Amino acid sequence: MNHPTESPLQPILAPGSIAVVGASRDAGKRGNMAIRYLQQNRFQGRIYPIHPKESEVLGLTCYPTVKSLPEAPDLALICTAAHTLPGLIRQCGERGIRGAVVLATGFSETGEAGQALEEEMVAAARAMGLRIIGPNTSGMFTTHCGANLVGFRDLRSGPIGLLSQSGNMALSLVTEAGQHPSLGFSTYVGVGNEADVQFHEYLDYFAADPYTRVIVGYVEGLKQGRRFLQSAARISREKPLVIYMSGRTAVGQQSARSHTGALSGSYALAKGVMRQAGVLLVERADEILPVANTLAATRGQLPLRGKRVAILADGGGHATIAADALHQLGLSIPRLGETTRNRLRELLPPSAAVNNPVDVAGGTDNHPQLFADCAEVLLADSDIDILLIVGLFGGYGLRFSESLSNDELQCARRLAPLPDRFDKPVLLQSLYRPLQPEPLRYLENTSIPLFSSIDEAARCLAAIADYDQARTRLADHEQSERAELSASVSDRIGEVLQSGRRCLYEYEALDALAAYGATVVPPQVIRDEQEFDEIVPSAAESRYVMKLVSRDILHKTDAGGVKLNLVPDDFVPAYREILANARRYRPDAAIEGVLLAPMAEPGVEVIIGVTRDRQYGPVMMFGLGGVFVEVLQDVVFRALPLSRADALEMLDGIRGSKVLDGVRGGAAVDRQALVSLMLAVSDLCVNHPEIVELDLNPVLARPMDYCVLDARILLNPQQEAA
Amino acid sequence: MNHPTESPLQPILAPGSIAVVGASRDAGKRGNMAIRYLQQNRFQGRIYPIHPKESEVLGLTCYPTVKSLPEAPDLALICTAAHTLPGLIRQCGERGIRGAVVLATGFSETGEAGQALEEEMVAAARAMGLRIIGPNTSGMFTTHCGANLVGFRDLRSGPIGLLSQSGNMALSLVTEAGQHPSLGFSTYVGVGNEADVQFHEYLDYFAADPYTRVIVGYVEGLKQGRRFLQSAARISREKPLVIYMSGRTAVGQQSARSHTGALSGSYALAKGVMRQAGVLLVERADEILPVANTLAATRGQLPLRGKRVAILADGGGHATIAADALHQLGLSIPRLGETTRNRLRELLPPSAAVNNPVDVAGGTDNHPQLFADCAEVLLADSDIDILLIVGLFGGYGLRFSESLSNDELQCARRLAPLPDRFDKPVLLQSLYRPLQPEPLRYLENTSIPLFSSIDEAARCLAAIADYDQARTRLADHEQSERAELSASVSDRIGEVLQSGRRCLYEYEALDALAAYGATVVPPQVIRDEQEFDEIVPSAAESRYVMKLVSRDILHKTDAGGVKLNLVPDDFVPAYREILANARRYRPDAAIEGVLLAPMAEPGVEVIIGVTRDRQYGPVMMFGLGGVFVEVLQDVVFRALPLSRADALEMLDGIRGSKVLDGVRGGAAVDRQALVSLMLAVSDLCVNHPEIVELDLNPVLARPMDYCVLDARILLNPQQEAA
Repeated sequence: MNHPTESPLQPILAPGSIAVVGASRDAGKRGNMAIRYLQQNRFQGRIYPIHPKESEVLGLTCYPTVKSLPEAPDLALICTAAHTLPGLIRQCGERGIRGAVVLATGFSETGEAGQALEEEMVAAARAMGLRIIGPNTSGMFTTHCGANLVGFRDLRSGPIGLLSQSGNMALSLVTEAGQHPSLGFSTYVGVGNEADVQFHEYLDYFAADPYTRVIVGYVEGLKQGRRFLQSAARISREKPLVIYMSGRTAVGQQSARSHTGALSGSYALAKGVMRQAGVLLVERADEILPVANTLAATRGQLPLRGKRVAILADGGGHATIAADALHQLGLSIPRLGETTRNRLRELLPPSAAVNNPVDVAGGTDNHPQLFADCAEVLLADSDIDILLIVGLFGGYGLRFSESLSNDELQCARRLAPLPDRFDKPVLLQSLYRPLQPEPLRYLENTSIPLFSSIDEAARCLAAIADYDQARTRLADHEQSERAELSASVSDRIGEVLQSGRRCLYEYEALDALAAYGATVVPPQVIRDEQEFDEIVPSAAESRYVMKLVSRDILHKTDAGGVKLNLVPDDFVPAYREILANARRYRPDAAIEGVLLAPMAEPGVEVIIGVTRDRQYGPVMMFGLGGVFVEVLQDVVFRALPLSRADALEMLDGIRGSKVLDGVRGGAAVDRQALVSLMLAVSDLCVNHPEIVELDLNPVLARPMDYCVLDARILLNPQQEAA
Repeated sequence: MNHPTESPLQPILAPGSIAVVGASRDAGKRGNMAIRYLQQNRFQGRIYPIHPKESEVLGLTCYPTVKSLPEAPDLALICTAAHTLPGLIRQCGERGIRGAVVLATGFSETGEAGQALEEEMVAAARAMGLRIIGPNTSGMFTTHCGANLVGFRDLRSGPIGLLSQSGNMALSLVTEAGQHPSLGFSTYVGVGNEADVQFHEYLDYFAADPYTRVIVGYVEGLKQGRRFLQSAARISREKPLVIYMSGRTAVGQQSARSHTGALSGSYALAKGVMRQAGVLLVERADEILPVANTLAATRGQLPLRGKRVAILADGGGHATIAADALHQLGLSIPRLGETTRNRLRELLPPSAAVNNPVDVAGGTDNHPQLFADCAEVLLADSDIDILLIVGLFGGYGLRFSESLSNDELQCARRLAPLPDRFDKPVLLQSLYRPLQPEPLRYLENTSIPLFSSIDEAARCLAAIADYDQARTRLADHEQSERAELSASVSDRIGEVLQSGRRCLYEYEALDALAAYGATVVPPQVIRDEQEFDEIVPSAAESRYVMKLVSRDILHKTDAGGVKLNLVPDDFVPAYREILANARRYRPDAAIEGVLLAPMAEPGVEVIIGVTRDRQYGPVMMFGLGGVFVEVLQDVVFRALPLSRADALEMLDGIRGSKVLDGVRGGAAVDRQALVSLMLAVSDLCVNHPEIVELDLNPVLARPMDYCVLDARILLNPQQEAA
């Protein structure tokens, strides 16, 4: 386990003293409200109002300038208009202030002039060693020190650290949390334009913050996606990161753009790289808090031993809904062993179902404590990893008889310590949760998360299993040995760029892959018809393929530059025809020659591609060829460098994954071979950042090996090392 | 519009007088509680306790037997044990009682003895002309007359009619509805074992019931699925049917079985036939009530003119989430026309986004009524069909200043009539909804459904569009002209069954399809080698296929009974080889001859199949061939008979539907031709119920036509007409 050191943002986000620049005596002004919020939230530090003329604001001594302050406060909250900012930042820096929250709008989100002003402000901050939160932010709060700089009402402190690119979404989440007694926040930051401090830097703060047990983010687009992924992959081993990504569709992006200026990319791509980094990407905004709360509550019960869930229900309907939902989410609801079944039979009436789901069938109607008895039996079963209780618990007193409430409370007291005792997560859904009866109130803030919806409970349970799997993968993930730089590939790339080409010839691309350990058909380039005299007698394969090699003709098939199924006697005529076709297609094309290779044995067509994403840097795409990619867009993404575990997850991550196991009686493909090719591609693209695009399309995946049928590598001389 | 007549169940489900058989003075007994519930719910009719010895129960005169009652009450609620039932039902019938609710368990759900008892009870009821609700039911209630026979607390009356196969799910829904001031119920029936009255009969009651505006069902399995579909298709033109189906997965079915004994089938199949019948199948149990409430509230605004949604938001985050969610659900968020944009610009501050989504960008902060102004502008736009408002509305008074509450209330008053005025649905999401501020309380029970979750609002909006589409399809759906019975097909089927065969020869199957108008390659059966002398000279196609015809060999390819790519010179040797292979494969096989047909031009492989489902009767499956079916299970189902609109929806209903539009430069297939084939198959299978299975696999769908490459029809002589 890493012991994270304190973040440099710590004194800024949990300040001991705050200057409010633009303080005001006018109750409607932000510079007045800000101080009131701090006072109402019992801010434990010193507050310094700054106003050129006032001597006192809300009972506090007011200072005319930051320069005149008696100490350098940890943080300046700047409430004045955009144009004042560069100057104020300099003044703050000179006074020794190390952090500022800038609320003003009118910066890069408004256009070029605002962009220039923002850059000037950031330059001043950098020069002064001061960090800026915002601008164009709703503010921030840290509950443990009462630093509420955003003015949300009724803030409850708790384990959730919140980062948001939308102030209204933060307000939504805080308001929603207000409905649930167990939900509360450590620190919130409205990141605003991220002019200075970036999203991933806040992650590092939360990682080190002892008040934060789970990190929640609302993201519309990341300016430094790669840095985010690196931070996330490190942090998520220790603390869960729950992210909701907005602007997934073109129409959503349109709206996101007009909001923060952040540009979103493909959601499929983001899903892949986020998953790789251990991030729990939630699909619905109304699942953000339930998932976060569940992970905060059950974090102590990880790692899991498996995904085997026992369902304990007091009614068949609820049991069935829960079983369906969990099964659809990929969890296992195993049949119970004979010992457990017998123990349950002893506890329950004869009509009870002691399968999984367990349905107590009225057994708890007069004695709700049976829930605790059954829970103990199920948790003691070594073939069960997680327990989900669904139904009416907590409401027996309301539904049947007041006298049962006490028995239910006893039951709650017995349930509460079970997760720790058995080291297994326990989740509880009750239709009475919204009514907050005493037994359920007792369970709030224990290790047992509560739900009113079975669907929500199932999704949160699946999130525990997802997070557990990612954590294990990231923890096991040795610093993957990366291949050393291949000098021959560097040289070749240098030569190609020198010659003004931007695309490697196919044989060069195959050579480059081979240099990183990929098994490729030895590419044979024929530059002269005479060479066939030597080749034909020794040709041992039954059929060959011949392809044009020309820098000027990218689409070889269109140009009549590909011949299949050739026997050696066909070589010379095919060569002549290809050259003739190429000259007809593009008379001025420079022709290097042709490539000759044996025809490949059949296999499953897959596609491996690498692009450099605007947000996330180099990413690999994997998919099955043909209709799977063209019609179903059945592809999966991961950021480079790829680990072996990442590559294996990619193979399993496509919907058509079963095709790799063999269809219509065919044998399974060699997954390890495919993985080794993907790792070679990863090493190649990471070591040679001039490669901006790579396409192996198709690769034939076969039972014993693979065969790269076409390889295309595009270069960009401007690209710097990743 | 149909004007439904009163249901025969009406006096039973909304009784004017009730006999409580098994009445008791013991407050813990069901026969005492039942009377208390009725009294507490101010039941407006007469209550007759029945007990052999008591003279008075809860202040009411008690009668020793039903025979001794002074009148025949509409309904008997029977609280006594199972074994008393057949006798009691007879007594009730003799006294002229026409309906009974039987609470007792111990019937078919427990095994053979219970099954026999249940049958005896039903026989008694049938003989007496009495209808039974249950047994094994939690009971029923009808709010408008105070007939609460189930004892749920705090029942609120409202437009939802509820049918449930799980008492606990009914309790869940009633408890959940209690949280939301606009949700209430007309009638609830716990259908229990459905020993007598079946699920679809209750649907007919709800269809005619003026208190019910939307029907909700929790279903684990249907005993008479076909009758259900017929009722649903009729009713859903007038009232929305919202169904949640449980037991979708094997593990869920396991649990459902142990609960009610109802057997569930494939969920994919149920999804298809439910959709066809206009049912709104909700995927999450926590969406049942929101969807039902939305449809009840917006029913008056149907039909829609389209699926074009305007989003009105007071923050970019909410706008983006809403746009993403709606887009993913298939709704359109069109760009606004210049007129509307200009009108919005006049209303809103310069920083506002007058695209769609509209983001008021603080414009409403001091003047929430702007929401109503903007809503009017958007609803007046003829290119907008639905309006979704998301964000903070109703909470300005809480968030900013008390003084805004009044403006918000004014706004609510202006919003409420807009759906009716513009005849377009309006939905409103506010993060303040759980706090129930006055402006939102005002909107409860108007035509504007309210939401706290954007995701939920989006799904409910999509449900409106789905329902509208189904309604339109069902309303347009002429009594599809069915083909008349083909005597030749009847004769052939008779002959085949007579001969002891259960499977038509392929050429017979093709003949049968042709008789119902399908275009099939004229099947030519060769029974003797000499026939080739005549055929070979006139063979005009370039390539042929030859297939074995034998009643004893089903898997022709395995037996070496198929030869492809034949030219006429190959016919005789191929014929001999096929016969030799067949004799080797199964020496005792009766061999009819071979089938000769031209090789088909290439096309898109599709599969059309018909089976008789245990629940829903004859259903058609449609899918793309190859990996689409084998790996992705990408198939869609509809019940027969099929309408043209059904068939078209099937083609669009598979995930790989785009393949039919042509891939890799190929032309689109002829959808109308495929549809005509599907209708021919439908007619064939409906007219000849002896056909228990039909498989056209594959059919080649082509740009101008289709070609059935293989046809298999299985018969069952026992099958009666559908």
